Amino acid sequence: MNTSYPSQLLEDAVQEFSKLPGIGKKTALRLVLHLLKQNQEDVHRFGSALIRLKEEVCYCSECHNISDQSLCPICQDQNRNHKQLCVVENIREVMAVENTGQYRGVYHVLGGLISPMDGVGPSQLEIESLVARVREHEADEVILALPATMEGDTTAFYIYRKLAHLSVEITTIARGIAVGDELEYADEITLGRSITHRIVYKGN
Amino acid sequence: MNTSYPSQLLEDAVQEFSKLPGIGKKTALRLVLHLLKQNQEDVHRFGSALIRLKEEVCYCSECHNISDQSLCPICQDQNRNHKQLCVVENIREVMAVENTGQYRGVYHVLGGLISPMDGVGPSQLEIESLVARVREHEADEVILALPATMEGDTTAFYIYRKLAHLSVEITTIARGIAVGDELEYADEITLGRSITHRIVYKGN
Repeated sequence: MNTSYPSQLLEDAVQEFSKLPGIGKKTALRLVLHLLKQNQEDVHRFGSALIRLKEEVCYCSECHNISDQSLCPICQDQNRNHKQLCVVENIREVMAVENTGQYRGVYHVLGGLISPMDGVGPSQLEIESLVARVREHEADEVILALPATMEGDTTAFYIYRKLAHLSVEITTIARGIAVGDELEYADEITLGRSITHRIVYKGN
Repeated sequence: MNTSYPSQLLEDAVQEFSKLPGIGKKTALRLVLHLLKQNQEDVHRFGSALIRLKEEVCYCSECHNISDQSLCPICQDQNRNHKQLCVVENIREVMAVENTGQYRGVYHVLGGLISPMDGVGPSQLEIESLVARVREHEADEVILALPATMEGDTTAFYIYRKLAHLSVEITTIARGIAVGDELEYADEITLGRSITHRIVYKGN
C-alpha cells in the first residue's frame, strides 16, 4: 500500500509497528486497527508497558541477564553451583536452558556474538567480565552454549583463547541429531559430528 | 515456553504483545528483545504513538473513516462526487479502493459487518447514518463493496432492504476471476458468478 493514511496518528502508529522485525506495513496496519478496537485503558497499558520496560529494566551485575534487581534470581540462588558457568548469547537461551530443568549452574549472558559483518566486536560483549568472573570465583567449568554458526564459532574460539591460560574446564554443548529427527533428513555436518562425538551406549 | 521470565517488566511487555492477533509468546519475546536493543527515545516514541493514537484519534462525522479532523480529507474534497457512496466494512477497504485510483465518489465506513455469531447487530454499525446520509444528500448510487462472505452478504441484504424504498441505485462490486488467475484453480462459485455476470467484450 502506498496510499496516504487518512490520519497522521494512524500513520505514526503503523510506522512504529512496521519497524519491528518481520512486521510489514500491512501487518502493522492490521495490528493498529486491532488496538483501535480495544478500550483506552488496555492500549494505555500496552504503551506504558513498553516505555516502562525500557526505562526501568536493569541487568544482573553478575550474569548480565535481564532482571528487576541488581542480582537476578538465578545468581541469588545459593542452591545452584556458582562454579559452573553456562555462556549464552542472550536471555532467550537462558530461558530455553532453564526450561530443560537439567542445569543447576549459573549463566553468563554475552549480549550478542562477535560479528564483524554487523560491526560487533569482542569489546561490545560481556567477555572481559566473563574472564574476570571465572578468575574471581575460581570457576570449575565454562559451558559454551552458543549457536553452531560462523558468529557462534568465532565467539566460542575467542572465549576459548581468553580462558585457556586459566585452570577452568571449557566444554561445549553436544551437536547431533535431534531427538525424534530422521537420520536421512539431517545435514551432513550434523550427522558427521554426531558420529565423531558418539557416546558409549548404556541401554537407556 | 512456560518458564518464568527473569523480569516482571519483561513479562508485562511480552504479555501485551502476545494479546495482538497472530502474535504468540515466542514472537512477542523476540519483538520485546528487539525493542530493548533500541535506544530509549525510539521506544518512548513507539509507546506514546500507541497511547496518542487511541486518545486523540477521531472519526469523520460524514463517512466515519478514521481522521484527524471532524471531516476527513475525502469528504472535504469538492472535486469528488458526493452523490456516489461506496459502502465498506473498514478503513482498510477505503485505502484499498483509494489505491486503485478508479473511484472518485465518497465512502461510508460501517465499522464492521452484521455477525450474530460475534454478537454484532445492525445497531452497532453505521447503517442508520448511511440511510440518513442517502436521504439528506439525495445520493444517486450506493456501491456495496463488502466481502463475499456470510457476514458480508447478510449486511449487504440488510442495507438493500433499508434503502430499497429510496430512489437510489444500489450496486455491488463485480465478483469474478482475478486478473492473472488461472481458471482451473478458481472455485466453482466464483467461476459460476463470472459466467452469469459476463460482460460485453469490447476488445480492450
